Amino acid sequence: MIKARIVVTLKNGVLDPQGKAIEGALGTLGFDGVSGVRQGKVFDVQVDSADRTKAEADLKAMCEKLLANTVIENYAIELA
Amino acid sequence: MIKARIVVTLKNGVLDPQGKAIEGALGTLGFDGVSGVRQGKVFDVQVDSADRTKAEADLKAMCEKLLANTVIENYAIELA
Repeated sequence: MIKARIVVTLKNGVLDPQGKAIEGALGTLGFDGVSGVRQGKVFDVQVDSADRTKAEADLKAMCEKLLANTVIENYAIELA
Repeated sequence: MIKARIVVTLKNGVLDPQGKAIEGALGTLGFDGVSGVRQGKVFDVQVDSADRTKAEADLKAMCEKLLANTVIENYAIELA
């Protein structure tokens, strides 16, 4: 059993209105000097395998096929 | 300028229907042995401050007040 965390973030240059809204809300709450807020997604996954190399290849395929839109998003895979 | 990443995840025991749906979709795509999929959120934030201790306290307050629902979610703050 291999635990992995996948972090999917928007690529640089892709507009992030949700991040901008959060930035505005933080300013309204009195947090000054906050900038560059970008929101992304995180997936915690358990893969039933003992082969870390195969698990990593599988996780990469999952990102490419389902978890990330690689046109506008980057992904990073961390094995626990 | 301090860069930070905040990861917000559902607490254990809180139902995650979105995670379950992703798990089902991965199974349909032929990825066997995937379990325990949980989806969370990630926020990349820049704080305009040189004081890491104050920045960390501010980020904690941001999580408590806006970014996480602490009844059902945990958060983790990583300073870059």
